[in-house]
Amino acid sequence: MTRTKQSSVPHQQEAQGAGIAAAGAVAASDGQEAAAILAQARTQVDPELRRAIETLPGSLRRVALYHFGWEHADGTPAAGHAGKAIRPALVLAAVRALGGTPELALRAAAAVELVHNFTLLHDDVMDRDTTRRHRPTAWTVFGEADAILAGDAIQALAQRLLAEDPHPAAREAAVRIAACVMELCEGQVTDVAMERRRPDEVTLDECLVMAEAKTGALLGCACAIGGLYAGAGEEEVAALDRFGREAGLAFQLIDDIIGIWGDPARTGKAAGADLAVRKKSLPVVAALASGTPEAAELAALYGVLEPDDAPPEEGELEAMALVVERAGGRDWAQLHAADRMSRAVHQLSRAVPEPEAADGLLSLSEFVTRRSH
Amino acid sequence: MTRTKQSSVPHQQEAQGAGIAAAGAVAASDGQEAAAILAQARTQVDPELRRAIETLPGSLRRVALYHFGWEHADGTPAAGHAGKAIRPALVLAAVRALGGTPELALRAAAAVELVHNFTLLHDDVMDRDTTRRHRPTAWTVFGEADAILAGDAIQALAQRLLAEDPHPAAREAAVRIAACVMELCEGQVTDVAMERRRPDEVTLDECLVMAEAKTGALLGCACAIGGLYAGAGEEEVAALDRFGREAGLAFQLIDDIIGIWGDPARTGKAAGADLAVRKKSLPVVAALASGTPEAAELAALYGVLEPDDAPPEEGELEAMALVVERAGGRDWAQLHAADRMSRAVHQLSRAVPEPEAADGLLSLSEFVTRRSH
Repeated sequence: MTRTKQSSVPHQQEAQGAGIAAAGAVAASDGQEAAAILAQARTQVDPELRRAIETLPGSLRRVALYHFGWEHADGTPAAGHAGKAIRPALVLAAVRALGGTPELALRAAAAVELVHNFTLLHDDVMDRDTTRRHRPTAWTVFGEADAILAGDAIQALAQRLLAEDPHPAAREAAVRIAACVMELCEGQVTDVAMERRRPDEVTLDECLVMAEAKTGALLGCACAIGGLYAGAGEEEVAALDRFGREAGLAFQLIDDIIGIWGDPARTGKAAGADLAVRKKSLPVVAALASGTPEAAELAALYGVLEPDDAPPEEGELEAMALVVERAGGRDWAQLHAADRMSRAVHQLSRAVPEPEAADGLLSLSEFVTRRSH
Repeated sequence: MTRTKQSSVPHQQEAQGAGIAAAGAVAASDGQEAAAILAQARTQVDPELRRAIETLPGSLRRVALYHFGWEHADGTPAAGHAGKAIRPALVLAAVRALGGTPELALRAAAAVELVHNFTLLHDDVMDRDTTRRHRPTAWTVFGEADAILAGDAIQALAQRLLAEDPHPAAREAAVRIAACVMELCEGQVTDVAMERRRPDEVTLDECLVMAEAKTGALLGCACAIGGLYAGAGEEEVAALDRFGREAGLAFQLIDDIIGIWGDPARTGKAAGADLAVRKKSLPVVAALASGTPEAAELAALYGVLEPDDAPPEEGELEAMALVVERAGGRDWAQLHAADRMSRAVHQLSRAVPEPEAADGLLSLSEFVTRRSH
């Protein structure tokens, strides 16, 4: 999940989202609860995270402090924009939902956030992304080698936090995080390879597996680790993992919708941003696989972008967006996101039968899939 | 330690080496013992390593199997040239030296070997190295992204092996490996940065710290983990770590001597290979720091190589090698290597007082610093 900006979802999705919430345990009101949970998680986990990063050797520490927003490129202190802390918040909310003590899981929550950030550092190098959290990416400031090595060290740091954690769940959390890293890497390999293939050679199933690996796996891992730290049983932990994965897929679908039809004034990114780079996002691949006349039209329009291709002409991206929509890509993505959220809520109810206890996790999942932030 | 080829050391070093061995516990005869220990380690650890790699997801597994020499680039089986297994052999020899059961440390030995190989995969990308173990490097075959991601996944795999290992020493081994990865990364950051600096701006101390981080740290970690798995005390484990580090530095010094004065017929690499790429190897930096008239001469000759610089002219590298030698770089490196080996032997005697028990570790350290392989 490399995006950090996201708008409210389109109206149709809002309506469906409300439907899901009604079908689920508790309708999280207006996102204020989620915002409060996130802010609290940030406050609780930041000192742990900061303390861990301070133990990195000199050059790597500088890259990490810059990446996390705690230092400017010249090493002077910065206010910090270390992201929304969704993953640590999920860890702590899952601990709370299962009746555990969140304060005992701060190290694990920090480890999950470290893993997320190590993958961001590496993905930005591979994807040649130049902006992250409104600042130049670390590799553009410190060079590719330093960004790769800082990422390597941050992965090690995450594992060291768990290996040093006396909590009885730490060992199983370490196994889960390691397995999750492998899945994240496989997802990124698939993504990089997909970008080189022709759009009509890519199947929807492949895309969904990739999105689950890249986005769902770590959200699921965060929830599962929360369960482990609360002493939950195997079945509850598995259901929490599925909950995070389904919510992650819903998030990715909504994010892909915004990447095509988002309102630039609200999302801060250009309209049709994903179309401009010919990203094989889920609505596009669904449209291509629709078997409609528009699918063929889209396949002809949507080749692999070469570095020396001209920028899109006036109206070109709008025309593409319309073809994707007429081929059913938008409707499919919205329905599928709703379906994933409904599955997420179902899994949550298996792990946490009492609606009140599940409230924090539900709010967070609705926040990431519906809110403007 | 990214080199895999190495010749016998020059005559002077042989003489000093014999002196060191005499001063130490046991003179390892002719390297046959070490070769047998290495072969046994390979036989014991390979199945564990292979089993671990088989659990990687599809695309990453292919890169890893290629890198370890078990598959060709097209995925067909290969004979395997997975290196000399020095690090796993050190783990198992240290277990044996401290009276433990090597068979219980196979997973830890495999984890150390995985960490070594994850750093090789990443270093080759950063250093643009195109050959490793007589084959094209993984990034040249699969692309940079896949090589980076395979490396990431292999680091995770190493930590998973330890997190799943029921041995009571596994947790502390995981902490040590994570700390070692951070040191390896810092060493590589320093190395990459050094290559961009003017040779006379680089101090000998910096170079030694870097060499200890890049080469000594993992050898020390391997020995220390062996100690942990044998249930050794804190002091013994610390002495084993120092032993590995000192032997690692001795290795690096000898390797650097060979990189300048090695015999191409015996080393398989061109004479003056390190001079041709203006590597700031230890003998060169020692020569530059010697305060001799030749130091100034060398500084003028030895700028930072630019990509469009002409290849060296006939006799240029020989002339450089002579200046390094006249400035005392060769003598310094040989004496310093001898000093490091002597310190290594001293540390070994602290960890393992009985000469017979220390024999395996001593043979291995002499093998890596003296033998042709």
